[in-house]
Amino acid sequence: MIGIDDELFLRGDVPMTKREVRILTLAAARLCPDSIVVDVGAGTGSITIEAARLAERGKIFAIERKAEAVELIRRNVEKFSVDNVEIICAAAPDGLETLPELDAAIIGGSGGRLNEILDVLSGKIKIGGRLVLNAITLQTVSTAIEYFKAHGLPYEAFQVQITRLERIGRFDMAKALNPVWIISAVY
Amino acid sequence: MIGIDDELFLRGDVPMTKREVRILTLAAARLCPDSIVVDVGAGTGSITIEAARLAERGKIFAIERKAEAVELIRRNVEKFSVDNVEIICAAAPDGLETLPELDAAIIGGSGGRLNEILDVLSGKIKIGGRLVLNAITLQTVSTAIEYFKAHGLPYEAFQVQITRLERIGRFDMAKALNPVWIISAVY
Amino acid sequence: MIGIDDELFLRGDVPMTKREVRILTLAAARLCPDSIVVDVGAGTGSITIEAARLAERGKIFAIERKAEAVELIRRNVEKFSVDNVEIICAAAPDGLETLPELDAAIIGGSGGRLNEILDVLSGKIKIGGRLVLNAITLQTVSTAIEYFKAHGLPYEAFQVQITRLERIGRFDMAKALNPVWIISAVY
Amino acid sequence: MIGIDDELFLRGDVPMTKREVRILTLAAARLCPDSIVVDVGAGTGSITIEAARLAERGKIFAIERKAEAVELIRRNVEKFSVDNVEIICAAAPDGLETLPELDAAIIGGSGGRLNEILDVLSGKIKIGGRLVLNAITLQTVSTAIEYFKAHGLPYEAFQVQITRLERIGRFDMAKALNPVWIISAVY
Repeated sequence: MIGIDDELFLRGDVPMTKREVRILTLAAARLCPDSIVVDVGAGTGSITIEAARLAERGKIFAIERKAEAVELIRRNVEKFSVDNVEIICAAAPDGLETLPELDAAIIGGSGGRLNEILDVLSGKIKIGGRLVLNAITLQTVSTAIEYFKAHGLPYEAFQVQITRLERIGRFDMAKALNPVWIISAVY
Repeated sequence: MIGIDDELFLRGDVPMTKREVRILTLAAARLCPDSIVVDVGAGTGSITIEAARLAERGKIFAIERKAEAVELIRRNVEKFSVDNVEIICAAAPDGLETLPELDAAIIGGSGGRLNEILDVLSGKIKIGGRLVLNAITLQTVSTAIEYFKAHGLPYEAFQVQITRLERIGRFDMAKALNPVWIISAVY
Repeated sequence: MIGIDDELFLRGDVPMTKREVRILTLAAARLCPDSIVVDVGAGTGSITIEAARLAERGKIFAIERKAEAVELIRRNVEKFSVDNVEIICAAAPDGLETLPELDAAIIGGSGGRLNEILDVLSGKIKIGGRLVLNAITLQTVSTAIEYFKAHGLPYEAFQVQITRLERIGRFDMAKALNPVWIISAVY
Repeated sequence: MIGIDDELFLRGDVPMTKREVRILTLAAARLCPDSIVVDVGAGTGSITIEAARLAERGKIFAIERKAEAVELIRRNVEKFSVDNVEIICAAAPDGLETLPELDAAIIGGSGGRLNEILDVLSGKIKIGGRLVLNAITLQTVSTAIEYFKAHGLPYEAFQVQITRLERIGRFDMAKALNPVWIISAVY
């Protein structure tokens, strides 16, 4: 099933997509058992691992530029025993050109090169495939939406704001996670 | 996959759990292909239908007291061609006593009888099984959490606030959905 | 005091800034008793009226292009007996050129001409004065922030999401208002 | 004017009501220039200081049990040169009995004794006066609302969720503050 608990992933100091946001992101990507998927800016690999379990007969390419994060992905792949992940250490869009046709692309981080990444991915995603983007900055939301509009791609976008109740003695205290925008386009 | 689009369900005037909340609720229930599940206050049956697809070799009991909603569930079951749903027209906790042991219970509506419902379900859910509750009122959140505390059941709770971007000409306008609390306990 | 109840304003079908957002907007404008203020896209005049009470020895110019709304502003000015409001029926930036130097400008609506409005206002706002903007679309937030950045103006921005508890029998139900971005720049 | 910047207060390690929440709390209290006010659980004194400026001819009693916080309040009173504040070092409801009749009571912290505090304050607040409560735990919201209901006091409650945009290079990143419930009752 979808939705591995956050604390089960090896994380180090690499930022990780929180469980609730990860679930909604994966659901937006509409993965199938055979899906070929790329996870751009894979970070700890939490999205990669969950995608690998959903697309169990498919393949996940995890692109990540930071060596420390690549090592974490490697260890999480091992920990969760998924065998359909290929890790590519590169700063996207580098590393995307050689990918096969994709059913879905998930962008968790774009290192300031979002338009280039969208250009390359747009040439890779199959008709009916989906591109899903997590954005935590205003500029990323705007760039993505302007791109989809300019290219006539239908898109959906929503902001998700999770507030967890944290038990402290006999009280349950409201603790907000930072909101994330989840934007998806259909090709 | 999880996450059927809202507009694909037949709805009438019956309130429906929105897609994003439905996904997070189902993920909280940790359904398996063989799960035996009850959906209390099933409404349109949107949770029931998705649960039926996730627990494809299992069984979903949908409890709903309103005749109009029961009819909608029936038609949605037909529309989505799921064959592992049993609809029970009753005001829970009525109708719960005869259920078999459960892997998961999802409570979307409790008609003001939440404590009684929790009492009956607590006798039905297997060890390791989960109870997941959607709450839109302060009283439901409080009652659920006080119940779980009083019975020493570990629980998690979070509020999810979704804001959809709605395209209006060249603008994308932020439209909030009402927040929902998702509370889960492990038995 | 700041924060007139929503239902005290005459509203018709004109959209109105809700009390909580109005309060935060006015607080962002840092009005003084002598402030000279413009309220662009004044709508029902709810911001105008509150500003007029805060800047009791100053003056508020309310710019609004819709005749129906102008009439509402007029009636609200009368209802709340403020005598320091001048209503200008024009589509901003039209109507802004003739204004005197301003201590603060509040933009509630810009009719798709935000950059032009910002250009004219930038020539009117005193050093140390403030421009405050309410945005409900992604494009308005982005345009404003890019403008302030391009012109080297320090700015602050936050999103406010209010969820009111609505009493229904013995329950208190969570009802979300649409989120609003409040952006302020200092000149 | 209402809304002193957070960083202008001396804070130490004492938690402080953030500016946006402070403004909405003060607005809910409907202070007048002559108001007699108590700030229960005054913390750094940020609410006290702003109330003292709004009720410039009135008086603010700041109740706080922690010596470290009392010292901060003292220093903030000095820093902002307000002369209508009386600080009482006590764990409320202790220290409330000797107060005069009140126009408004603001409760920022209740140290687990909320019902007792509400009982004492209910005997102090004038007819038409207001009690405003900030709550960050589920139990505080529930206790307050159940109290107001049980005593037939009209109340309003809303949750405020602020997300600030934080500038990081050319990006503006969304950072959530924890949500706060603001509950007010009229006596």
